[in-house]
Amino acid sequence: MIAIGHAEDLPTAFMEAWNRHDMAALAELFIEDAHFVNVLGTWWTSREEIAVAHTATHETIFKHSRLSGTLAALTPLGPGVVALHLAWELEGQIEPDGRPGGKRRGILLLVATEEPEGWRIRVAQNTDIVPGLLAPATPVAAGAGR
Amino acid sequence: MIAIGHAEDLPTAFMEAWNRHDMAALAELFIEDAHFVNVLGTWWTSREEIAVAHTATHETIFKHSRLSGTLAALTPLGPGVVALHLAWELEGQIEPDGRPGGKRRGILLLVATEEPEGWRIRVAQNTDIVPGLLAPATPVAAGAGR
Repeated sequence: MIAIGHAEDLPTAFMEAWNRHDMAALAELFIEDAHFVNVLGTWWTSREEIAVAHTATHETIFKHSRLSGTLAALTPLGPGVVALHLAWELEGQIEPDGRPGGKRRGILLLVATEEPEGWRIRVAQNTDIVPGLLAPATPVAAGAGR
Repeated sequence: MIAIGHAEDLPTAFMEAWNRHDMAALAELFIEDAHFVNVLGTWWTSREEIAVAHTATHETIFKHSRLSGTLAALTPLGPGVVALHLAWELEGQIEPDGRPGGKRRGILLLVATEEPEGWRIRVAQNTDIVPGLLAPATPVAAGAGR
């Protein structure tokens, strides 16, 4: 049993489990009925589904991948409830056709609660940073209030 | 001032404001220092940034768009804190080059807290459902635990 004493240690534990390709340890960071929406909008609704999906991808496209990142925001939402934004980079992905993939970047949101056994992830959602896909959205974010 | 008495009314209020293209009403659903990561990984960190960005896109690509959806999950996270998953469809988007866009689907996560003025969104993250982009992830989610 992994004991996470501080919510801010969850992103590090997630990345360490990812980089060891230890999907049992990764899944253990989630509560049993956790929600996880991945970058493709695939929605897992249990620790078991999260474990199965990540085990399969870590035998294939993510087998030699390395995840790094920084905790970009920690937002307390109430007693024992926080939101954590991990700004991540992923290297070493293999494309489905076998070619090496390029570096990816994204934002992983983890909403965690303090349980008797320590902090656990209850709701996660991951989004790739895709510059230029729908051009209007990005410049506007930094733009004037027209 | 919009008063949202029940957290589960937030997704409906969001969609109604979107479909009226009333970005002042949409922004008012968020607390002042809300986080919002959009489908491109653009990260807004205030109600003002959310208002500015959505005002610009609703003058352009989303001008005639219509958002619909269902509240697919409501997860209590603690007293006065809930996570809401809105499974949405968007029609009528205009592509940056002026062509009509196809229907889009996605999952909008809203993490909301009960404030003195009613329920407000504190953290939002949106992800497009993109079938087949990284093929291994999707079949695995429903697959056997190999």
